[in-house]
Amino acid sequence: MEKYFENRLNKLNAAHELLLNQKNEVELLPNGIFERYQNPVLTAAHVPLHWRFDLSPERNPFLMERLGVNAAFNAGAIRWNGKYLLAVRMEGWDRKSYFAIAESPNGIDQFRFWDRPITIPQTADPDVNVYDMRLTAHEDGWVYGIFCTERKDPAAPEGDTSAAVANAGIVRSRDLLNWERLPDLISTSGQQRNVVLHAEFVNRKYAVYTRPQDGFINVGSGGGIGLGLIDDMINPVVQDERIIQNKHYHTVYELKNGLGPAPIKTKEGWLHLAHGVRNTAAGLRYVLYLFMTDLTKLDRVIYLPGGYFMAPQYGERVGDVSNVLFSNGWFEDEDGRVFIYYASSDTRMHVATTTVERLVDYVKNTPADGFHSFKSVEAINQLIDTNQGLY
Amino acid sequence: MEKYFENRLNKLNAAHELLLNQKNEVELLPNGIFERYQNPVLTAAHVPLHWRFDLSPERNPFLMERLGVNAAFNAGAIRWNGKYLLAVRMEGWDRKSYFAIAESPNGIDQFRFWDRPITIPQTADPDVNVYDMRLTAHEDGWVYGIFCTERKDPAAPEGDTSAAVANAGIVRSRDLLNWERLPDLISTSGQQRNVVLHAEFVNRKYAVYTRPQDGFINVGSGGGIGLGLIDDMINPVVQDERIIQNKHYHTVYELKNGLGPAPIKTKEGWLHLAHGVRNTAAGLRYVLYLFMTDLTKLDRVIYLPGGYFMAPQYGERVGDVSNVLFSNGWFEDEDGRVFIYYASSDTRMHVATTTVERLVDYVKNTPADGFHSFKSVEAINQLIDTNQGLY
Repeated sequence: MEKYFENRLNKLNAAHELLLNQKNEVELLPNGIFERYQNPVLTAAHVPLHWRFDLSPERNPFLMERLGVNAAFNAGAIRWNGKYLLAVRMEGWDRKSYFAIAESPNGIDQFRFWDRPITIPQTADPDVNVYDMRLTAHEDGWVYGIFCTERKDPAAPEGDTSAAVANAGIVRSRDLLNWERLPDLISTSGQQRNVVLHAEFVNRKYAVYTRPQDGFINVGSGGGIGLGLIDDMINPVVQDERIIQNKHYHTVYELKNGLGPAPIKTKEGWLHLAHGVRNTAAGLRYVLYLFMTDLTKLDRVIYLPGGYFMAPQYGERVGDVSNVLFSNGWFEDEDGRVFIYYASSDTRMHVATTTVERLVDYVKNTPADGFHSFKSVEAINQLIDTNQGLY
Repeated sequence: MEKYFENRLNKLNAAHELLLNQKNEVELLPNGIFERYQNPVLTAAHVPLHWRFDLSPERNPFLMERLGVNAAFNAGAIRWNGKYLLAVRMEGWDRKSYFAIAESPNGIDQFRFWDRPITIPQTADPDVNVYDMRLTAHEDGWVYGIFCTERKDPAAPEGDTSAAVANAGIVRSRDLLNWERLPDLISTSGQQRNVVLHAEFVNRKYAVYTRPQDGFINVGSGGGIGLGLIDDMINPVVQDERIIQNKHYHTVYELKNGLGPAPIKTKEGWLHLAHGVRNTAAGLRYVLYLFMTDLTKLDRVIYLPGGYFMAPQYGERVGDVSNVLFSNGWFEDEDGRVFIYYASSDTRMHVATTTVERLVDYVKNTPADGFHSFKSVEAINQLIDTNQGLY
């Protein structure tokens, strides 16, 4: 039996190290806007063995996985003190999500989890589930994490075991190891998801992007990406919340939309990465899109290219919730490169790389949505005309 | 033409034999709890050619498939007279399900269907569709098959062609060739699915596990795994039905749950394999979980490990109804090995092997669900602390 245990542990360790040291290569022929990579950057299998297995041959003679991990996805991201870090949404076999920091030497491979998952202090009303943390290094000196906190709907009818309420939970830290919990977001909406803190003060206030909605799954008459102001993060009451980019019939954000990570500042405006949702016969379909807001008037969208920026392809299409791309993490490196961390199908994390220069070109020069098929054909014909003599 | 027919028939036969004789290998690095295998054990392609093709060159010169099979899944299982047998849910191209017995020399590969599918005698109210048979060799000497029988809802509003009523149909046999039909289950619930006969008498009565529900798809205020008693299988009235393991918010059995096959008796209690269902943006998600009930007090759950036991992975994720694992068949071999037969995505059958000893270890030593994210993090930290010095 001891021989079995030792053999098995050696195999598990060897396979784990092989996975963690795997190099990542750029895809064969990128679309020019960004580059995908051939391997995911993080999966459930990346989780350290000592989080999952009891490593004592006496207590666990079969070397069984005791606390299995189902998925590693929807990570916040930050370039911080020279490090490439993700605050990953981990999901256990028990379907509870929590957060863990993973670090890479280059942002594209060899991600390793820190020693332990993040411990989120609890409020008087304990979180049942937490997920999708956005990291913002605010100019006040704190790194904030805003995440979704979910609890059972106290108004759920008898026998309805699914009805829940989602709101924004807030933590902050100076070392990403110890996190201070602040009160949950206070807004006039019944439910809030995809809440993101803007990195700069706006008229000496904190600014947050929101996504007010009516129900737990349905945005109802709510929806759209909102913007509001907060006087004091210790009492995070959202004021003057208004929708700056709304859902729209027959676009990639027809059914709902929400902001991804905090926007990246460029000379031309704030670059935003968001997700848009449509309904299909096989369930909801999530894609990513970009837009740009004015440098000073944050509620003014100045560029909104038509269509999606990134949609699931090949193996990305299949997972725990299929046909979903979601991103709540990106950052700009010192050299102008942009690292976009996106999850596919609620299962695993990937990276795509590009530059600020290319993204600004993309949002400025990609035609806006014409909202009609014949407008799309017109745009194609215009492009073909422009290309006369060039092909 | 005759040449074409002969060539085609030879190819079909050769491919079929190749498939049926394929060996099955254990997956590369199992989780210690059970081993999956690299190939499914049964698919639609395993069905004998003479069930599907008219083999006369005169009547079928193109050698077309006349009665195509869509899927082979959700099989009952029994170790019976030295044989490894499955009672498979077959689904034709016409979406009607029926049952057929398949036999293997070792339980893990080379499954072959018996000569003909099972003929289920009809009651006065004919079954429209039948599926998901659980086999139980009862101590009364009969082998019972309890399956789901579905009929159009007589109260369906005009124009609603989907509304149906599901109940438990009952057959029994002494040779698994000839089946006697008993009356359908009589219970106070509007709909019954996942009904399973316990192998032993309980106070000289038959005991059945049930899953009462309100609607055809929705369990509504119903749901949970029930237990009831029946005096006489000739008049199968369920008495004293009560829920022994209920659905619960933010667990793998949040939306609904139901028992898989009849439980396996161990020294420590009755081992149960069940399925749990959650809702997602891409539809319902089915996983398998385990629990144990007291040896004599059958309604007392004594171990309920947190999280799922088995969830779909890789190719298992995709099929007719994606992201579904379902099992209604397992058995213990003479040597203590346990064979778990599970279907993936309503399409094909797989096997996983383990032992009673390992499953008892699993249900006793896997932490229970803490029902909150921070409890999951606590459990991980506890495991990490326990592992200090071991990694």
